[in-house]
Amino acid sequence: MRKKPTILKIETIASTRLFNIQSMDLQFSNGVKRQYERLKPPNASKGAVLVIPMLDNDTVLMIYEYSGGTERYELALPKGKIDNNETYIEAANRELMEEVGYGANKITFLKTMTLAPGYQSSTTHILLAEDLYVASSEGDEPEPLEVVEHKLSNLDSLVYNDDLTESRSIAALYMAKEILNNR
Amino acid sequence: MRKKPTILKIETIASTRLFNIQSMDLQFSNGVKRQYERLKPPNASKGAVLVIPMLDNDTVLMIYEYSGGTERYELALPKGKIDNNETYIEAANRELMEEVGYGANKITFLKTMTLAPGYQSSTTHILLAEDLYVASSEGDEPEPLEVVEHKLSNLDSLVYNDDLTESRSIAALYMAKEILNNR
Repeated sequence: MRKKPTILKIETIASTRLFNIQSMDLQFSNGVKRQYERLKPPNASKGAVLVIPMLDNDTVLMIYEYSGGTERYELALPKGKIDNNETYIEAANRELMEEVGYGANKITFLKTMTLAPGYQSSTTHILLAEDLYVASSEGDEPEPLEVVEHKLSNLDSLVYNDDLTESRSIAALYMAKEILNNR
Repeated sequence: MRKKPTILKIETIASTRLFNIQSMDLQFSNGVKRQYERLKPPNASKGAVLVIPMLDNDTVLMIYEYSGGTERYELALPKGKIDNNETYIEAANRELMEEVGYGANKITFLKTMTLAPGYQSSTTHILLAEDLYVASSEGDEPEPLEVVEHKLSNLDSLVYNDDLTESRSIAALYMAKEILNNR
């Protein structure tokens, strides 16, 4: 079953400032043909980073940010796109300074995640940030972000908080908790 | 910080069979104006379900499915869109039968998650399925899906498996493990 389908054709069918929609003609190994649609980042994207900033071994810094998709303030971990000239470590540190007002002396790569691999090619690198120091820099946020502290020891109840819906943040918090507990 | 921006204008700027891209003119409470772009499901979508099917208290059924976004077979939990006439419980049971060959006598709602709330309005309901019985029905999959068993007691290592990248599945597996461990 794991013989990949043949890609017969890929075509851009719509594009905007942020999105690029492609149609994809596929023929599966059993002969079945299908047309899929998918989103590709408009340029050669290096993906995004999502950072778990630990103030100490139990205290994680999270943000409330207005989200256009859901039209509400979402509680989530800081994240952002990797700029062209950056490594993902540099991107993580920049986003931290812009969004939570800290830099990190220690950044550990945990995992690369996807959002909806069926129709999105974008990836997010999950990074654990420790040994924080106060440092801020100006980002492109339209308004200052509200930074809040949560405890990984309370994660069992935090995941049921309706302000927290973003799946990468939930997955990343569990991964961080497991790593820090097992040290 | 949490006074929502005013939505000055929403406009559809591109649409295809699966996607609908809107631009959104916003004015934040500090006066700053921004134009965002976001994805809206083309019709009145009821969202999606993602199901954690437990064969017993430790054994979870997962699938390998070809994913057009990443152009590879991804290991993930079964999921799919809720049809117009369905509850999410019915959708979960249907997807289970189509994708893993089981129905469930007990389905428990855990959480509603988002993918990328900044630019996507879609939501996914996470459901724990237990007391399974053999039952299958024909789905719209282009080829049969490969079903594999994993153990929640091995989740610590499973999350580092490169075949498993989809963030909703990772978050859902952790939530299920915690619930089942705490019973």
